[in-house]
Amino acid sequence: MTDDRRARGSARLAELDPRLEGAIEAGLAPISPDFAGFMVEFGFGDVYARPGLELKQRQLVTMSALATLGTAAKQLRGHIRGALNVGLTPTEITEALMQVALYAGFPNALNALMIAKEVFAEAGVSPLADPTPAKEP
Amino acid sequence: MTDDRRARGSARLAELDPRLEGAIEAGLAPISPDFAGFMVEFGFGDVYARPGLELKQRQLVTMSALATLGTAAKQLRGHIRGALNVGLTPTEITEALMQVALYAGFPNALNALMIAKEVFAEAGVSPLADPTPAKEP
Amino acid sequence: MTDDRRARGSARLAELDPRLEGAIEAGLAPISPDFAGFMVEFGFGDVYARPGLELKQRQLVTMSALATLGTAAKQLRGHIRGALNVGLTPTEITEALMQVALYAGFPNALNALMIAKEVFAEAGVSPLADPTPAKEP
Amino acid sequence: MTDDRRARGSARLAELDPRLEGAIEAGLAPISPDFAGFMVEFGFGDVYARPGLELKQRQLVTMSALATLGTAAKQLRGHIRGALNVGLTPTEITEALMQVALYAGFPNALNALMIAKEVFAEAGVSPLADPTPAKEP
Amino acid sequence: MTDDRRARGSARLAELDPRLEGAIEAGLAPISPDFAGFMVEFGFGDVYARPGLELKQRQLVTMSALATLGTAAKQLRGHIRGALNVGLTPTEITEALMQVALYAGFPNALNALMIAKEVFAEAGVSPLADPTPAKEP
Amino acid sequence: MTDDRRARGSARLAELDPRLEGAIEAGLAPISPDFAGFMVEFGFGDVYARPGLELKQRQLVTMSALATLGTAAKQLRGHIRGALNVGLTPTEITEALMQVALYAGFPNALNALMIAKEVFAEAGVSPLADPTPAKEP
Repeated sequence: MTDDRRARGSARLAELDPRLEGAIEAGLAPISPDFAGFMVEFGFGDVYARPGLELKQRQLVTMSALATLGTAAKQLRGHIRGALNVGLTPTEITEALMQVALYAGFPNALNALMIAKEVFAEAGVSPLADPTPAKEP
Repeated sequence: MTDDRRARGSARLAELDPRLEGAIEAGLAPISPDFAGFMVEFGFGDVYARPGLELKQRQLVTMSALATLGTAAKQLRGHIRGALNVGLTPTEITEALMQVALYAGFPNALNALMIAKEVFAEAGVSPLADPTPAKEP
Repeated sequence: MTDDRRARGSARLAELDPRLEGAIEAGLAPISPDFAGFMVEFGFGDVYARPGLELKQRQLVTMSALATLGTAAKQLRGHIRGALNVGLTPTEITEALMQVALYAGFPNALNALMIAKEVFAEAGVSPLADPTPAKEP
Repeated sequence: MTDDRRARGSARLAELDPRLEGAIEAGLAPISPDFAGFMVEFGFGDVYARPGLELKQRQLVTMSALATLGTAAKQLRGHIRGALNVGLTPTEITEALMQVALYAGFPNALNALMIAKEVFAEAGVSPLADPTPAKEP
Repeated sequence: MTDDRRARGSARLAELDPRLEGAIEAGLAPISPDFAGFMVEFGFGDVYARPGLELKQRQLVTMSALATLGTAAKQLRGHIRGALNVGLTPTEITEALMQVALYAGFPNALNALMIAKEVFAEAGVSPLADPTPAKEP
Repeated sequence: MTDDRRARGSARLAELDPRLEGAIEAGLAPISPDFAGFMVEFGFGDVYARPGLELKQRQLVTMSALATLGTAAKQLRGHIRGALNVGLTPTEITEALMQVALYAGFPNALNALMIAKEVFAEAGVSPLADPTPAKEP
């Protein structure tokens, strides 16, 4: 059963970014391999792999929570990459982070946008080049 | 131009809940009608009314931010109602709030779910009766 | 020396509201009279009684911090009362709390304004009746 | 394996308070029985039941986290009861919550102490009657 | 009307620091020029430019909110510079940030003071050299 | 009396790490020596030096609060070092930080564990080499 949870979590995590599970394991290996297991089995196997929300929707929820916290720059970076990988457009990501300003203030939203800017540059994408309209006519 | 922003904000707000604008205005009338204007013109007219994200997506972002803050019970209640009104299912809402536990902890997620439970009861809906599957077979 | 700190704290606290020290002591008597001492001696005697900022300025700092936290409704209520007592106008208080929306989001600012509304009503004052202009001509 | 996790979580939770698991299940039954499962299996079965920290130590960690958040009054109440049940003295609990003032501010610490005061009154205990010295001679 | 809001925001922002608007625009150009517009038009044009509080008062409110959040080092740096520019003394700024310790804890206050120390060093000013008394005789 | 508070605070602080008081004083010397005094006299002399909790217990409370805040990396680093110095094992520290995930989310707990990993490496210790069992048989 644990094996199922782990396999299900690994599969879901790989949809976001195939390198993430290895990075989580390597980072935690010297201090708590069990915590890496919790993240994959519980975080991704039990929660993220549930039906009821598509991965694109889950990434909106996660990016909003991380931008609101304001304390998780590295995790936000990884989840913005994941958001691109599962098919959210740069515009959708940018719009979601801008909206966070209403609830968590301009600085947290701005810091999140600056992280997105870097991820977009690395990925060679841009909301400004996005076919999705950014402004109503 | 302000009139456009106000009209656009009012229209967007009415999609969430036709009673919200009146409630915002009435609540702020004795202290700051201007702040009610900011919420409608900026919050809903400038930000929420932008294209690039559907209202269902915006409600996921907002509910996640409010649940993460943990300090906005009343606003979360209103936005869960709005989420139902724009077509998110009780299952989608519940899944989003459960996922917040990963980033903002179990207590904030649990408190948000308890608010959703009340909103669902008032609306006569339930994620348990939802045709969307809540658990993989 | 402790007596000096206590006396200085008591005096400063009384400028905000003569009933506050008694309320703090009564509330903490069954659990930690020492914590009441810390609040008066350190909070008000060591910090609040320092020169370098006027009490009106200190109330702006405190109201902003409490509204940003969003978890301290009771303390915010007391400090808004104190702000009126040391001479901040209802308009100054309202403006400060509105400004918090930029940094801590609309819900935290709105919740703070709703508390101010109640304090103003109890005190029979209103920013709308304030001679200080609330809006440029 | 899930059964093991659930059984281990139930057992650990019962050490804190035999009524807690039923309360969690009843509260979540209309909205997400799965979330109750997560709390018991993951929160208490995977994390809380680990060796390496005694339950008294875990309660110090939890009370500190909840008081710091400031958004989890109900959960803090339950965990203060649990802290008494696993053998922390009223003095130890009070000292821990006072200390939180240094890191999360006086209002969050004070609000936590007010919750502890109610729990102690219900339990008929008091740090003031505690044989543990509250102040050095 | 937007032009008015933009012009009013630009003017207010320039009082804080003439380089800030350009920095905001440059930082956001590759991801969301509209967000830069929101910051200037709404943040500075609608809110910051309101009468009812002087700029020195507004800087106290902003520095307190940013220090309390603890997640906005860059923005706090900019606003401490702005505070000096609009006439707050190094002592007033230092006192405000010290006071934040009471509400948001010592670490958030200390981190804010370390940022102020750097800004003061760059500006060649110091609260220790301030003619405003830092300690009562 | 202040001298007593200072001496008591210095002594307590030296138990955590003999270099900490000098570091606090040096860091604050150019901006607010008084704030260094507050930290030593109030934080360590008034609060940390109280009986009722052992230093090992106080470090659990502090690490949990700092990990929950997520904004105090430097302070958390110092207090993890202090925790080792007063006798908490690497396993106890790791377990406490893992548990924080339940209340403050995985990212804040993970960031805290990454700081602990660095402190442990500097100290040449590891929870994996700890005689305390990390997992039940």
